[in-house]
Amino acid sequence: MSHWAWGPEPDHHELEQTARLISEVIGLGDPSAWRPPVPFERVRMAPPRLPVPELLSGFATAEPYERARHTYGKAFRDLTRAYRGDFANAPDLVARPRTEDEIERVLEWAATTGVAVIPYGGGTSVVGGVEARFDGPALSLDLGRMDRVLEVDPLSRAALIQAGATGPVINSQLPDGLQLRFYPQSYEFSTLGGWIATRAGGHYATGNTHIDDLIESVRALTPAGAWESRRLPGSGAGPSPDRWLLGSEGALGVITQAWVRLQLRPTAKVSVPVLFDEWIAGVAAVHDLAQSGLNPSNCRLLDAREAALAAGGDGRHCVLILGFESGPVDSLLEAALRIVRSHRGEPQQIRQDREWKGSFTRMPYLRNAYPGLDVLVETVETAVTWDRFAKLHDEVMGLGEITCRLAFVYPDGPAPYYTITASGDDWDSIKSRVSETIMLHGGTITHHHAVGRDHRPWYDRQRPEPFALALRAAKTALDPNGILNPGVLV
Amino acid sequence: MSHWAWGPEPDHHELEQTARLISEVIGLGDPSAWRPPVPFERVRMAPPRLPVPELLSGFATAEPYERARHTYGKAFRDLTRAYRGDFANAPDLVARPRTEDEIERVLEWAATTGVAVIPYGGGTSVVGGVEARFDGPALSLDLGRMDRVLEVDPLSRAALIQAGATGPVINSQLPDGLQLRFYPQSYEFSTLGGWIATRAGGHYATGNTHIDDLIESVRALTPAGAWESRRLPGSGAGPSPDRWLLGSEGALGVITQAWVRLQLRPTAKVSVPVLFDEWIAGVAAVHDLAQSGLNPSNCRLLDAREAALAAGGDGRHCVLILGFESGPVDSLLEAALRIVRSHRGEPQQIRQDREWKGSFTRMPYLRNAYPGLDVLVETVETAVTWDRFAKLHDEVMGLGEITCRLAFVYPDGPAPYYTITASGDDWDSIKSRVSETIMLHGGTITHHHAVGRDHRPWYDRQRPEPFALALRAAKTALDPNGILNPGVLV
Repeated sequence: MSHWAWGPEPDHHELEQTARLISEVIGLGDPSAWRPPVPFERVRMAPPRLPVPELLSGFATAEPYERARHTYGKAFRDLTRAYRGDFANAPDLVARPRTEDEIERVLEWAATTGVAVIPYGGGTSVVGGVEARFDGPALSLDLGRMDRVLEVDPLSRAALIQAGATGPVINSQLPDGLQLRFYPQSYEFSTLGGWIATRAGGHYATGNTHIDDLIESVRALTPAGAWESRRLPGSGAGPSPDRWLLGSEGALGVITQAWVRLQLRPTAKVSVPVLFDEWIAGVAAVHDLAQSGLNPSNCRLLDAREAALAAGGDGRHCVLILGFESGPVDSLLEAALRIVRSHRGEPQQIRQDREWKGSFTRMPYLRNAYPGLDVLVETVETAVTWDRFAKLHDEVMGLGEITCRLAFVYPDGPAPYYTITASGDDWDSIKSRVSETIMLHGGTITHHHAVGRDHRPWYDRQRPEPFALALRAAKTALDPNGILNPGVLV
Repeated sequence: MSHWAWGPEPDHHELEQTARLISEVIGLGDPSAWRPPVPFERVRMAPPRLPVPELLSGFATAEPYERARHTYGKAFRDLTRAYRGDFANAPDLVARPRTEDEIERVLEWAATTGVAVIPYGGGTSVVGGVEARFDGPALSLDLGRMDRVLEVDPLSRAALIQAGATGPVINSQLPDGLQLRFYPQSYEFSTLGGWIATRAGGHYATGNTHIDDLIESVRALTPAGAWESRRLPGSGAGPSPDRWLLGSEGALGVITQAWVRLQLRPTAKVSVPVLFDEWIAGVAAVHDLAQSGLNPSNCRLLDAREAALAAGGDGRHCVLILGFESGPVDSLLEAALRIVRSHRGEPQQIRQDREWKGSFTRMPYLRNAYPGLDVLVETVETAVTWDRFAKLHDEVMGLGEITCRLAFVYPDGPAPYYTITASGDDWDSIKSRVSETIMLHGGTITHHHAVGRDHRPWYDRQRPEPFALALRAAKTALDPNGILNPGVLV
């Protein structure tokens, strides 16, 4: 893995070529001023503030490459800082435990020494969730070696999986066509534990949009002991313990494994692109589809510019990608197309299958080419009820060079996903203006990117104050020394 | 409302007649020894331990009838004690606030005086959730006067509704065919606030089985201030605040109102009873239906005896009630029937509509006739993964005169619902044996009846210990004087 890029170190010549192409398409940046990334040998990083303790020596290190690789997530600001060789916030130590016993050793040592522990999955946070942006020493606790499928229950279609397993690693271990069928865009690198900790969003546009509903039980290690819920298909016994860990972002405990719900690989899939002359007609169609009870697995509306950049659109039409992958898919699609046509949507060729995963997961790689151009690109997402969506959308789109897709859709509102490009690197200012606008118009500060450190000011305003009080008290009870991911949530 | 019965005071002659019929059918009890309920004038109740305070005098009372009516929920043990005139645990005061301001006055007064406050919705708890089963004075806080639909957002299909509204009261206020479509068996009397506080189960057998998914935001008053989440179709911003209140059973705050998701009245509904010679074949069919992705709205399997008692069955066949009410219902039913036939199920006449609500909500009234017979009848429910279901089911069925229906069903397991009848009144012993068996075989102590005081010992064993620690800390932060529903959850 590269110390700065998404994925392995890119070929620098190819990177420059990609930068040129991007600059032509988006009309921003000066390709002649392109600069390569600062090579690893020249990055700026303070020496570790403490040695590897004897107790952790079998699986912890202060080695600079590991520290660099664990410094940031993958927000565009992270990418830029790493590209420029700035690793000021590098953790002092990186631990890569192989067992729960080793995690417990880390927690005990940290409680005694006061060293902060940052649980680390795939390092794909785009909200500063894994960065040691605080005073005092830090240890990055990388779960990557705990990546096994430990048990499969084929009758209940469920599996017990370790938290450090990435999407491909999980699916490679599952038998007989059983799949998790959870594909966030970071799928290649992000992990089950990270998905749970951040309430990640998968590829289903309706229904089970988040990992939340795919979780049967969770096990986490806290400084106050092991937290493990019972495997249950459903329960009404008090507030759900799993829902306290879902979204806990490493602040309450280290998620070590979970029972997840599996599905058979779908046998019938249909998909059709639908063109709309006008955004507003596409939105109206998506609104009606969301309330139809048909639950399409794919129902993503791209505005004309986003469609041109990401889906081969003609730059004039919005494109709705509509698909079904369970049940009587032909009847469902037929019913959905009736709705679409009533909004003057023009269905194109129906496909019986579709290979979307390749292009979908390739998109983050493209971002590697932007920092050298001195152009920033970032994505911001929210969810908002339909009655407030039009106003929120108009205001956000007015803030700069922005394209939009409705990535997820619910009966009561869409989850729009905005891609922002701008010259320069004033990430904070742009992020701040968009976040303010979202909050002002009734959206959530995040639909599936989590809070981390970047969304914290808006999260604090969004959450109910007595809930914050209760969360702080819960955190203090579980983590009295405040060692777990300080500054996140609490 | 009767001081003891489900619904208004029953005609005693009719009650005796019903008791005779029941005794004949189930072969238990001696109708000749039938005794009428102790009339209200002769019930045993201690005088209130405190007068109505001046501050609450406009909406609180110590009047005996109100105190009696707020003494119990509707567990069969509650019904029996009330039938026999035992109101030893009557609350000292009953408050019926009309505004949040009056609720705040109650909470402030209670924090000062240390009087326990029991939030009370419809009084239909079957788990001792509203009974003052503790030392010291208690005030029952009845939300029944706060029953208005305050706002409707037709575009997002959502409504803001006060917590004290019952099912019929809600639907009578909703416009234009919009409905909440949430029908627990207690629908006539239970309230939105109670559903949220107990994570109640509705009539959908798959998908949105619990009220949880129908909630867009919740507002509750806690001693530490008002807790109100933002209206959102979806969010990933930290652990969901709503999920902390869902299942909080009055221990964290008084739920005063919520935004809920609405649906149009379905235009097409189909339903078909399917007969199975053997329970095990019916279970296998339900298993496959649950994993099919077809999401039937109704998918309830009744064993032969339950079907004979509740659905006109012949006493030899198990009956599966299978139905769809959204999407292309005919195609969905066709796909479902292919699965059913592969398990030798025999579909009967397909119905285009069905009137099930009447008989469904009438069932609790029948229980009114049992206490006079000295026969007990109780229902116990759980949920368990498929791999453990057969063993759990066999063990529970071996404990006595028990019938079963699979009331809800998930891809990873069913939620069986057991009805137990027995001579005498040893409710505690039977409840305890069934609960032990459920816990031993991997079930949840409750799928949708809540924890209350009756399930507390098993709940304490079921929940993860660090979660209990966190919950206690959260409770203490919100309710430092411990006035809210003491003994429940914490």
